[in-house]
Amino acid sequence: MKYCSTCGHLVEQRIPEGDNRHRYVCVSCETIHYQNPRIVAGTVPIWQGKILLCRRAIEPRYGYWTTSSFMENAETTIEAAERETREEALAEVDIEGLYSIIDVPHINQVHMFYRATLKNGEFGAGEESLETQLFALDDIPWNELSFPTVRKTLELFLEDFRKESYGVHVQDIRHPMSPSARRD
Amino acid sequence: MKYCSTCGHLVEQRIPEGDNRHRYVCVSCETIHYQNPRIVAGTVPIWQGKILLCRRAIEPRYGYWTTSSFMENAETTIEAAERETREEALAEVDIEGLYSIIDVPHINQVHMFYRATLKNGEFGAGEESLETQLFALDDIPWNELSFPTVRKTLELFLEDFRKESYGVHVQDIRHPMSPSARRD
Ligand SMILES: [Zn+2]
Ligand SMILES: [Zn+2]
Repeated sequence: MKYCSTCGHLVEQRIPEGDNRHRYVCVSCETIHYQNPRIVAGTVPIWQGKILLCRRAIEPRYGYWTTSSFMENAETTIEAAERETREEALAEVDIEGLYSIIDVPHINQVHMFYRATLKNGEFGAGEESLETQLFALDDIPWNELSFPTVRKTLELFLEDFRKESYGVHVQDIRHPMSPSARRD
Repeated sequence: MKYCSTCGHLVEQRIPEGDNRHRYVCVSCETIHYQNPRIVAGTVPIWQGKILLCRRAIEPRYGYWTTSSFMENAETTIEAAERETREEALAEVDIEGLYSIIDVPHINQVHMFYRATLKNGEFGAGEESLETQLFALDDIPWNELSFPTVRKTLELFLEDFRKESYGVHVQDIRHPMSPSARRD
């Protein structure tokens, strides 16, 4: 950030009065421009014991399998998760419950996944997907998953599936993606 | 938003290629300025069967009782909840588990509360608090709580406390604060 989005003048980094952190502050209109973590929301969408995944048609991680995207303003986390599933997989789901919250502090993101069941087994490839496919739990493409948060959530899900008991999991991933996990 | 924070030129609202929503887009450098919900994090801090609340020394809701604030970049939701409790109430806590997620879509916020126990019973008034006080569950100042999300979370907590069983609650509050609940 270099310019004030309110008045167009330059911003500087300083600690505002009564605060204890550096913020971008406009040198002209004094507006403080806070920066905050973003939420990524998605589902673990199940149909007849299989998990629905979408192969990304967009960067980053083009060609890798995913199930989530950024939450938008004016929606709830559940609505965001339902919308992502509708847009990416052309599938309508019933939300079963919150499943995982994975904090990723080094990139200022919080990923939230809800367990969900397809309403009628119908799905397809949305505009942001190359293809959409149901995977048996033994056939999950572990080496072609889009993000560490998806991998972590599916690992937890498999454990819970075997125990036939689904908790709510709060975890974090602090390291950057390993070089071997990167495509680009 | 009126100006591009990257180059200082004007932004316009339009739907970028491949998107389906209006975004602020710079007319000069074409940067898309996404806007996303913000997370508010806090604890329900317990000590010997009582709840610790802080009376706000800042706007909005100056003088009302609260227990949360905005999550910052580069921290996890648990770290944010611990930090808020430290800053507002000068109290160190052990996090017991995620308790509530309250979506507030009309103001683009997601509030997250963790159940917590004071480490040693010590607390005080931080810079953003007028005072900090332990309340018996029968004495919660319902008419002087800061935000509907705090009220909702404490209502759920009391129910669960009576049942001696704490779930994880996902709820939303869709209406604006009623005029009678506003101080300013
Ligand atoms: Zn300005
Ligand atoms: Zn620009």
